[in-house]
Amino acid sequence: MDFSSFLTSLATSFLIFVVLMFLFTWLSRKPGNHVIYYPNRILRGLDPYEGMRATRNPLAWIREALASTEADVVRTSGVDTAVYFVFLNTVLGIFVLSGLLLLPVLLPVSSTARFRIDYDESTSQGTFNNLDKLSMAHIQPKSRRLWAFVAATYLVSAITYSLLWKAYKHVSNLRAAALMSPDAKPDQFALLVRDIPPVQKGQTRKQQVDSYFRTIYPDTFYRSMVVTTNNKVDKIYQELDGYKKKLERAEVIYSESKTTAKPEGSRPTTKTGFLSLIGKNVDAIDYYDAKIKKLIPKLESEQKATLKDRQRSAAIIFFNNRVTAAAASQSLHDTMVDNWTAMDAPQARDLIWSNLPKNFYERLIRQYIIYFIVLLTIFFYMVPIGFISALTTLDNLKKLLPFLKPVVEQPLIKTVLEAYLPQIALIVFLALLPSFLLFLSKAEGIPTRSHAERAAAGKYFYFSVLNVFIGVTLGSTLFDTFKEIEEHPKSIITILGNSLPGSATFFLTFVALKFFVGYGLELSRLVTLVLFHLKKKYLCKTEAEVKEAWAPEDLGYSTRIPNDMLVVTIVLCYSVIAPVIIPFGVVYFGLGWVLLRNQVLKVYVPSYECYGRMWPHIFIRIMASLILYQITMLGYFITKEFIYTPILIPLPVMSFIYMYVCKKKFYRFFTCTALEVAAHEVSAAPNMEAVFRSFVPPCLSTEKPDGHQFEDAFSLISANGSVA
Amino acid sequence: MDFSSFLTSLATSFLIFVVLMFLFTWLSRKPGNHVIYYPNRILRGLDPYEGMRATRNPLAWIREALASTEADVVRTSGVDTAVYFVFLNTVLGIFVLSGLLLLPVLLPVSSTARFRIDYDESTSQGTFNNLDKLSMAHIQPKSRRLWAFVAATYLVSAITYSLLWKAYKHVSNLRAAALMSPDAKPDQFALLVRDIPPVQKGQTRKQQVDSYFRTIYPDTFYRSMVVTTNNKVDKIYQELDGYKKKLERAEVIYSESKTTAKPEGSRPTTKTGFLSLIGKNVDAIDYYDAKIKKLIPKLESEQKATLKDRQRSAAIIFFNNRVTAAAASQSLHDTMVDNWTAMDAPQARDLIWSNLPKNFYERLIRQYIIYFIVLLTIFFYMVPIGFISALTTLDNLKKLLPFLKPVVEQPLIKTVLEAYLPQIALIVFLALLPSFLLFLSKAEGIPTRSHAERAAAGKYFYFSVLNVFIGVTLGSTLFDTFKEIEEHPKSIITILGNSLPGSATFFLTFVALKFFVGYGLELSRLVTLVLFHLKKKYLCKTEAEVKEAWAPEDLGYSTRIPNDMLVVTIVLCYSVIAPVIIPFGVVYFGLGWVLLRNQVLKVYVPSYECYGRMWPHIFIRIMASLILYQITMLGYFITKEFIYTPILIPLPVMSFIYMYVCKKKFYRFFTCTALEVAAHEVSAAPNMEAVFRSFVPPCLSTEKPDGHQFEDAFSLISANGSVA
Repeated sequence: MDFSSFLTSLATSFLIFVVLMFLFTWLSRKPGNHVIYYPNRILRGLDPYEGMRATRNPLAWIREALASTEADVVRTSGVDTAVYFVFLNTVLGIFVLSGLLLLPVLLPVSSTARFRIDYDESTSQGTFNNLDKLSMAHIQPKSRRLWAFVAATYLVSAITYSLLWKAYKHVSNLRAAALMSPDAKPDQFALLVRDIPPVQKGQTRKQQVDSYFRTIYPDTFYRSMVVTTNNKVDKIYQELDGYKKKLERAEVIYSESKTTAKPEGSRPTTKTGFLSLIGKNVDAIDYYDAKIKKLIPKLESEQKATLKDRQRSAAIIFFNNRVTAAAASQSLHDTMVDNWTAMDAPQARDLIWSNLPKNFYERLIRQYIIYFIVLLTIFFYMVPIGFISALTTLDNLKKLLPFLKPVVEQPLIKTVLEAYLPQIALIVFLALLPSFLLFLSKAEGIPTRSHAERAAAGKYFYFSVLNVFIGVTLGSTLFDTFKEIEEHPKSIITILGNSLPGSATFFLTFVALKFFVGYGLELSRLVTLVLFHLKKKYLCKTEAEVKEAWAPEDLGYSTRIPNDMLVVTIVLCYSVIAPVIIPFGVVYFGLGWVLLRNQVLKVYVPSYECYGRMWPHIFIRIMASLILYQITMLGYFITKEFIYTPILIPLPVMSFIYMYVCKKKFYRFFTCTALEVAAHEVSAAPNMEAVFRSFVPPCLSTEKPDGHQFEDAFSLISANGSVA
Repeated sequence: MDFSSFLTSLATSFLIFVVLMFLFTWLSRKPGNHVIYYPNRILRGLDPYEGMRATRNPLAWIREALASTEADVVRTSGVDTAVYFVFLNTVLGIFVLSGLLLLPVLLPVSSTARFRIDYDESTSQGTFNNLDKLSMAHIQPKSRRLWAFVAATYLVSAITYSLLWKAYKHVSNLRAAALMSPDAKPDQFALLVRDIPPVQKGQTRKQQVDSYFRTIYPDTFYRSMVVTTNNKVDKIYQELDGYKKKLERAEVIYSESKTTAKPEGSRPTTKTGFLSLIGKNVDAIDYYDAKIKKLIPKLESEQKATLKDRQRSAAIIFFNNRVTAAAASQSLHDTMVDNWTAMDAPQARDLIWSNLPKNFYERLIRQYIIYFIVLLTIFFYMVPIGFISALTTLDNLKKLLPFLKPVVEQPLIKTVLEAYLPQIALIVFLALLPSFLLFLSKAEGIPTRSHAERAAAGKYFYFSVLNVFIGVTLGSTLFDTFKEIEEHPKSIITILGNSLPGSATFFLTFVALKFFVGYGLELSRLVTLVLFHLKKKYLCKTEAEVKEAWAPEDLGYSTRIPNDMLVVTIVLCYSVIAPVIIPFGVVYFGLGWVLLRNQVLKVYVPSYECYGRMWPHIFIRIMASLILYQITMLGYFITKEFIYTPILIPLPVMSFIYMYVCKKKFYRFFTCTALEVAAHEVSAAPNMEAVFRSFVPPCLSTEKPDGHQFEDAFSLISANGSVA
């Protein structure tokens, strides 16, 4: 890539961004689109423009985003989102400080060096001298100028350490503030217990759980809720819900048909068979009505059966104060660790109910099997793709889907398909990967969605750093590289240092594309907008259906964070070798900050709150990037034949010590609640019945106020306050 | 060593044992020796022969030992001792079962093989064919008979796994039974808190601690005791105590002199100077009396000063129920893990007071420094010995200690000394090593003596296995071996397999010597007896002094367990290669069991109780021996050119999985108290004041009942039960 084409690429990306931004300004003003651009505000019952000044400046959203405070973010979107902004702030801080200190020194040092670069060492594969001049490749081997780069390597590390330390403290305070809030959350009074041993003869599960906890916590135990297998009752509940929606829809159609003055007889009809496509034609309203009437008693009897017979080995325990719940979640209850394992209860909406009854060892074994599968995926992901593309050759396709035959036998289409089938398989694989990793993480037996998302994000991070970053840099698959390292074990250090400079421009373009096009699409929400209008026009009939069509998603940490982390890794690794990349990193995170502030305040709605437990995960990944950077620099200085290279060896050691100290000092508070925090007074004595009800899954809840059906799996509290 | 000299060595050891045993029978019957052979019983106020039958059979003690139950051991000597017997039982069980299954099969298989053994492969360095015939060395390489040994290798592992599993469960139950006993111990109500942050202005340490815990535990907090620096007050206390003893002694001498009808004026005198050796002659009784009168108010004012001004950043917190104390010890209190770190309070006598105020990071750093020192000690212990022996050449000795000159200039003595000085240095080093390791472990900042002993035992185990076992086997120092392994990394497996068979007879003799001579000395207590009689005759005047002279020690786990473990390692490693070693192992642990039962019931008095926390430590060391054995077998089968050798690879893998599962399942209960256990009812509401007083160090306690001096470091409880 020569300089002009690099600039062209940059300019094109920027142009797309500007176009998308103006599209956003224009589209977001149309009232019909407000549900797409302000769903968060609408759901909170606010006017889209509330609190904004009257001037309809096209960049007003930027001013508004910059003016918002962290407290605003916590209030509208929770601690998790605020922690994500701490991450953006910190990385931005690292890059801004590094840029301010490195660029004025390193660029002159490089560009004034007089050294003809070999083709091999070029940062742009030999055709792009303007950038080469500004990179470390332009420095002569053994040159004394390399000292400046040694200092820069240390400087970037020191900046990272100090900003991360501040960030960790800050996040810890955010978490503490949320947990000590006088406005106590239901999950703070609850404890999740798993691996309950088998029930003894003559005792029900509920009695077992209640008597166990009443013995240990005679004064503070309130009530328990045994986890049940809900798939059967849930199926009926979903069916009933579906019929209710269909009935509503049919009624709307009917009333519309009346207003449009059609004859009375045009009541909507439906077919009774599969997907309402086949079968007898019947009157829709009557049909759904009958179905609902039949399902309601079925649901009730199934609820009773579930609560009575499908109790499993997990339970949620409720205490009447926060300190006991917090202490209980950290304590060993049985002498055997694999019985009565306790943990902090997450929010009810965060629970993965089906994972709760999974056994201690089952969880362990699943975890290791899945680590192994992920390892295989990371190292050999090309194998199944090759296999799939071999299976999906044109001949096979023709056999499997004969109706495609006339199409694929066109010579042009045939050539294109034959050439691109493997690539298509790769693209499909990469598109499905995050969902696949999330599925794997859930299959580990993790009890909460937030934890599963963290686990999936971790897996995706290692996949993208190892395959995208290292893969592109070394120009080969990881597996081949590892074979080489195995044969020449000492090459492990120099192998990255040797190859890194060659890919600098590729990654410059990559980052630029990511922020201009990626953020442009993020802000304008074009895909969501188009989908919404299509749905609204052709599918949605009722209010509820329209609302469902625009319901905003959450931030999607499991892909967002690994993507950001890949940029962090790239920019850190090149920060000293080719410091021109730093401004690109600053733009990526600066623009991202502003844009996401807007999205968070107006669009996204978090689907759970885990009080910043994401942070230690982010911290570890940043440190992994930093260590990769430090080892890369070590390798690169060796290829520069710099005899003082060993002066860099303390850096990775320091990083490990730093991580260790941070883990020791901060980490435990992110796995549980400190008692000091839980001991803060609550504003009012909690309504324990409401706390309890908030954990009842929708398919088991009932409209009847007496709640008689809870007596089996859920312990009852009698009038005098003692447990029945 | 040929067969006859091996038998001679065995016979000699056995003869020594028989002599010592009869010596024991004879000596233990003399009433004057009862304090040496029955101190435990005497201290418990029992008659030495109580509960024994009248017949004075010389082997009656064996019958008595065999008849005693585990409950007896727990009652007289505590859970720790019972756990030590579980260890002996388990190892004995492993060896008996292995012997029963292996000997009848492997010995015929070996002895009927027709294979001339090379000198290199002999298990007795070529001169000892009778034993060689019974060992695996007698099997031809690649022989099909090796399958029997493969099966044996698996069998020994399987026996070890199953017996260890049973033992772990059993120990866990022992611990639970002790902790759930209705007769609650003071330490079960206490919590040890370290790393208390600095006191804020206008607040005392006591107020800070009290208000902190009263906020978190409003209903269950009873009182706190801030840890103080006691060395100054302790010095005065010791001084006062010394004078009190001296006064008592002087009075005894005086009254004796009166009864022997000496003139009235012969009151005992003493000198006022250094060690009572120099200075003015004064009347002893008056002098000590005056000293005591002067010291008592000094002690009191020093106690007050200590409690007021020498408060440190650690405290012991008392709760009025066991569950809260157990839950608190497992909970995070501050958001920063390095503040307010809490742990189970050990027994007061188990505390190392001076280590309590050590800071979180200080402890971490000390720990790593000490690990490093121990590593150096294990690998390079020859270096300082060489250095010391170079320093202590005769010429240097003559310069330093001129009065030795006439002695060392005798030609004979000179030759002997010059030849043996290095050996003497080695012996002195090995004798001092356990104390050195215990000193190092205490310097880590460990808060309890029991933990320090465990840590020292672990260090000593690795020293002895690596240097004695591997050192003797390979016939060189570890350091040389490691250099070889570094040069030929793949030799790590075969290096032990190659060398092991050559040392079989050495270790047979070693084990035999250890049990016959070692246990003979243990039982007869000759050294202790002689020392006691010497002290009694020449030094002791008062009752208290005599009692101090015979005061029994504890079992001394920090050296006893590593010594036993070395035998376990040796016997396990040779169990398949030379199965004749198994009976020796059986005798060692069988004899040890009987002997120590006797000693435990009659002699030793434990100096602390940590409810079996020693066990996980023992378990890990047995597993380490097993894994060493499995790897050795792998190496030995390779040298036997057995092509199915890889069939043994799953063994070490299985061991690691087994260890991991055991750790997951059982370990946590050994680091803290399960709430279920703590929730068992106590027989009577604890006397909290007595619980509190049991933790007051002797130098700070006072005879005055009002306890007014506690007001500074110890929070006071007022009449109405609230804390002042």
